[in-house]
Amino acid sequence: MDAAPLYRQLATHYRQAIAAGALAPGDRMPSVRALMARHGVSLSTALQTCRHLESQGLLEARPRSGYFVRPPRRATLAPVEEPHPSLPDPAQYIGIHQRVSAILARGQARPDALNLAVACGAPSLYPAAALQQAAMRVLRHQPELFGRPVPFNGTPAFRAALAQQALAARMTLGADDIIVTHGCVEALNLALRAVAQPGDVVAVESPTFYGLLQILENLGLRALEIPTSPQTGISLEALDLAADAYANIKAVVVVPNLQNPLGAIMPDAHKARLAAWAEARSIALIEDDTYAALGNDDTPLPALKAFDTSGNVIHCASLHKTLAPGMRLGWIAPGKWRPRVEMLKYAQSRPNEALSQLAVAEFMTSGGFERHLRRLRAQLREQRERMGEAVAAYFPAGTRLNVPPGGFGLWIELPGKLSSERVFDAALEDCIRVSPGVMFANSGRFDHYLRLSCGSPWSRELDQAIRRLAALVERLATS
Amino acid sequence: MDAAPLYRQLATHYRQAIAAGALAPGDRMPSVRALMARHGVSLSTALQTCRHLESQGLLEARPRSGYFVRPPRRATLAPVEEPHPSLPDPAQYIGIHQRVSAILARGQARPDALNLAVACGAPSLYPAAALQQAAMRVLRHQPELFGRPVPFNGTPAFRAALAQQALAARMTLGADDIIVTHGCVEALNLALRAVAQPGDVVAVESPTFYGLLQILENLGLRALEIPTSPQTGISLEALDLAADAYANIKAVVVVPNLQNPLGAIMPDAHKARLAAWAEARSIALIEDDTYAALGNDDTPLPALKAFDTSGNVIHCASLHKTLAPGMRLGWIAPGKWRPRVEMLKYAQSRPNEALSQLAVAEFMTSGGFERHLRRLRAQLREQRERMGEAVAAYFPAGTRLNVPPGGFGLWIELPGKLSSERVFDAALEDCIRVSPGVMFANSGRFDHYLRLSCGSPWSRELDQAIRRLAALVERLATS
Ligand SMILES: Cc1ncc(COP(=O)(O)O)c(C=O)c1O
Ligand SMILES: Cc1ncc(COP(=O)(O)O)c(C=O)c1O
Repeated sequence: MDAAPLYRQLATHYRQAIAAGALAPGDRMPSVRALMARHGVSLSTALQTCRHLESQGLLEARPRSGYFVRPPRRATLAPVEEPHPSLPDPAQYIGIHQRVSAILARGQARPDALNLAVACGAPSLYPAAALQQAAMRVLRHQPELFGRPVPFNGTPAFRAALAQQALAARMTLGADDIIVTHGCVEALNLALRAVAQPGDVVAVESPTFYGLLQILENLGLRALEIPTSPQTGISLEALDLAADAYANIKAVVVVPNLQNPLGAIMPDAHKARLAAWAEARSIALIEDDTYAALGNDDTPLPALKAFDTSGNVIHCASLHKTLAPGMRLGWIAPGKWRPRVEMLKYAQSRPNEALSQLAVAEFMTSGGFERHLRRLRAQLREQRERMGEAVAAYFPAGTRLNVPPGGFGLWIELPGKLSSERVFDAALEDCIRVSPGVMFANSGRFDHYLRLSCGSPWSRELDQAIRRLAALVERLATS
Repeated sequence: MDAAPLYRQLATHYRQAIAAGALAPGDRMPSVRALMARHGVSLSTALQTCRHLESQGLLEARPRSGYFVRPPRRATLAPVEEPHPSLPDPAQYIGIHQRVSAILARGQARPDALNLAVACGAPSLYPAAALQQAAMRVLRHQPELFGRPVPFNGTPAFRAALAQQALAARMTLGADDIIVTHGCVEALNLALRAVAQPGDVVAVESPTFYGLLQILENLGLRALEIPTSPQTGISLEALDLAADAYANIKAVVVVPNLQNPLGAIMPDAHKARLAAWAEARSIALIEDDTYAALGNDDTPLPALKAFDTSGNVIHCASLHKTLAPGMRLGWIAPGKWRPRVEMLKYAQSRPNEALSQLAVAEFMTSGGFERHLRRLRAQLREQRERMGEAVAAYFPAGTRLNVPPGGFGLWIELPGKLSSERVFDAALEDCIRVSPGVMFANSGRFDHYLRLSCGSPWSRELDQAIRRLAALVERLATS
C-alpha cells in the first residue's frame, strides 16, 4: 500500500518517465487539464505534482506556455585549467591557415549539419525587421544613394553614432577618429598592416580566435602565443617575459572583453597595466572588442582604448555579432596610426557602401540598439546556461567546462586528452558541426578542447544533439 | 549698302557675339520666336539664320530644346606620343603611395573645386532610382536579410548574373568561378596577394591607374613599368625584353580595354599573344577589366580571360563605374588560384553583404543593365567629344590630346614639357581639380601630362573651366 500523497505518486511516475527519456528535456509536460483527465485527479493535485517536479529541478514553468522538462542538474563541472606560462617559438606558427581552412571547408561541405561552430547568434536573435524598415526609410529619403560616390572613411552619421556608443565604453573618440571597415576582420588586417611588416612577430592570446591566426599568416606575420587565463585573459607576466625574449615583437593583439574562445574578461586593472606596458615598450596594442556588448551585465565593459593615453591602442570592433550578421559593418579607431590606416583602407577596398551604415545610424540614434542589446544579453545568458547544464548532465566524467559571463560560446576540455579533431570528424558524420580546439592555436596545446556555440535558442533538437555529442565523446574517450 | 541676304547679316552678327564671348559655348541661342521679335524678321529668316550658324559648326540643335552655342571647332590636336621602349629599374618605384596620397588629400581638401579628377560618371548618368526600387523589392521579399549570415563568396543570384554577363565578353565562367569583392580594388589586392610575395616584381603598364601603384607599394611589391601605347596598350616587345632582364617577374597587370589613363584598347591578337606568352613563362596574368563596357561600340570588348586556356589569367572587374558608384561591387575570377583567393578574401574581409548583390542581380536579369549601358556609352561618347573639342579650341599650341574610344578620361600632353603638378596646384587655386600625370607613374615620364575626367554632362560651367584651365596652362607654359 502506498502511503505517499497522490501528487507524490504522480510525481514519481513522471520522474521515471523523464529518467527513461520518454519525456525528454525541452518537451512540454502534459498540461494540468490533461493530468486531471488522464489520472482522474483534482486540479490542486495536478498543480501540486507539477510544482513538486519543478522544485526538484525536473520541470520549469514558462510564462503562458506551461511546464517543460529541464535537463537534469548535476554538480557543475570543474572549470578548464589555468595556463602554465611557457615561451613558445614563433617560427612554429606557420601553417595554421591551411589547417583552419581545411576544417572550415569540411564543415561547410555539410550545410545540413546542426551548426554548433558559428560564433554568432541565430537569425531570430537580431532585429532584422527593424533594420529592414530603417534601410527602406533611408532608400525612400535618398533615392539617389546608389548613384553617388561613397563617403571617404564612412558616412558621417554612422561614425558619429559610433563615437557616441564609444563613450559608454569610456573611450573619448570623435567621429573623425573612426574609420568604417568591412567587419572587425578588415579592421584587424588594417591595424596589423599599419604597425607591422612581413616577418615581424605579433603576440596573441592562446587560445585565440582562429581568424586572427589566419590573418597573421596571410600577412606574413609570425604569431607568438601568450598563455591566457579563462578568467582574466592574457597573462601579463608571460607577455613581459616574451617581450624580453623576443626583441622584435611589433604588436600585441587581444580580445579584452569576452575573449574567443575562453570568454575571459580582463579586469580593468589589467587593462590599465597592459596599455601602459605596451606604450612604455613602444609595442602597438591592438584590441578586438567584438564581444564587449554581450556580457551578462548591462553596464558596458570598458575597452582597452579607454586606458590609452598616447594613441598607442588601435581599437577594432564590429556589429556583425551584436546587431546584424547580414551586414558587414566594422570599424577601427587607429589612434596615432590614423593617416596610415586611412591610406591602407583606401588601397585595400576603398570606403564602405553607405546604405547599411545609414540604416544602423538611424537605429542607433533612435534608441533601438540599446533595447535590442538588453534583450540579446538576457537571451544569450539563458542559452549559455541551458547548453552548460546539458553538457554537465550528459558529458562523461573528466569533462571540464567554462560557462563564460557573456558571448556565444562554451569552452570544453575533453576527458582523457581526447583529440578534438576526432570528435569533430565523428560529430560531422553524425550531422553536428563543432569547433575543435586545434583551430585556436598552433601549439597543439588545445587539441583536446572543444568550442560549442550557444547562439541558438534552446530546443529539443539541441538537447538531443548534446546527448549525441556526449555519447560520442564517451565512446571515443574509452575506445 | 549690304547686299548679303538678311539671314547672313544676322548670322554674322551672332558669329561676332560668339567670338567675343557674349554668347559662350553651352549657352542657349535666342529662340526663333525671340529672333523674329528682336530683329523684326520672318520665321523663315530666323530659321535660316540658325541653320546657317549650325552648318558652320557654331550652333547645334538639341531635340526639343532649341539651338545652343558649340565650342569652335579647330583642327584636331596631334595625338600624344607613342612610348619609346626602355628598361626601367623596379627599385625606383617605391614612394608613389605617399605622393599619390598627398595629391589626393590636397584635392579632397577642396571639396568646393570642380572635380575633373574623378574617373567616374556624374550621379545623373546612373540608374540610381531603378536600383533603389530593386533594393526595396529585395528588402520587402526578404525582411530577414540583415539577420542572416552573408553567403560565402557572394550571393548565388549575383554570381550567376555575372557569369551570364561574362559570356558576352567571351569568357566561359560558372557562378562558382566568381568571387564577389569590394570593388575592383579589393579584387586586385587579392589577385596580387595570391600570386606574389613581398619583394616580388610585378610588371604594369606605364602610365597606369595610380590606385594600382598604391596597392603594389602597400603589398611590398615592386612595380616594373612597361611602355604602353595610347592605341594598342602594353608593348608586348618591351614586356618580353623586361622578362628576360628581370627573372623574378611574378605577374603582369593590365587594363586590356580602355586603359586608364590612356584609353587604349588592346587588339584581340595582342590579347591572345599576351595570354599565351604569360602562360609559357609561368607568369600570372592579372587583368583589370573595369571599363570594358564603356566603349563606343555596343559590341562587348573581349576580356583577356577569354584567351585563357589554363586558368593562368585572373579576371578582376567591378560595377562601380558602369552601374553604381554608390555600391562597392566588384568580383574576381581567379582561374587556377581560386582556392587561394577564396581563403585570402575570407581572411581579408569576409564575404560581401547581400543586399546590393541581390538588387543588382534583379536589375541585370530584367534587362535593365543592358539598356542602361547603351545609354551610358552614348552619353559618355558625347561628353568626351565635347570636352575634347573644348581642349582643342582653348589649349595653347603644342598641346597634344587623345580622345579615346570609350571611358571617362582625356589624356593630354602639356605644351613645352610643362609640369603637371604646377598645373594641378594652380588649377586647385582656381577651384578646378585635375589629375596630374605624375600620379600615373613613378618614372617622371608623365610629369607633363594631365588626365581630365569627362564624367559630367557638358555645361557652360565645364566650358568655362576648360577655358580657365587653358589660360592657366598658357600662362605657366610661357612664364
Ligand atoms: C574575436 C573575433 N574577432 C572578430 C571576429 C569576426 O569579426 P567580423 O565578423 O566583424 O569581421 C570574430 C568572429 O568569429 C571573433 O571571434
Ligand atoms: C583601372 C582601374 N581599376 C580599378 C579602379 C577602381 O575600381 P573599384 O572602384 O571598382 O574598386 C579604377 C578607378 O579609378 C581604375 O581606373
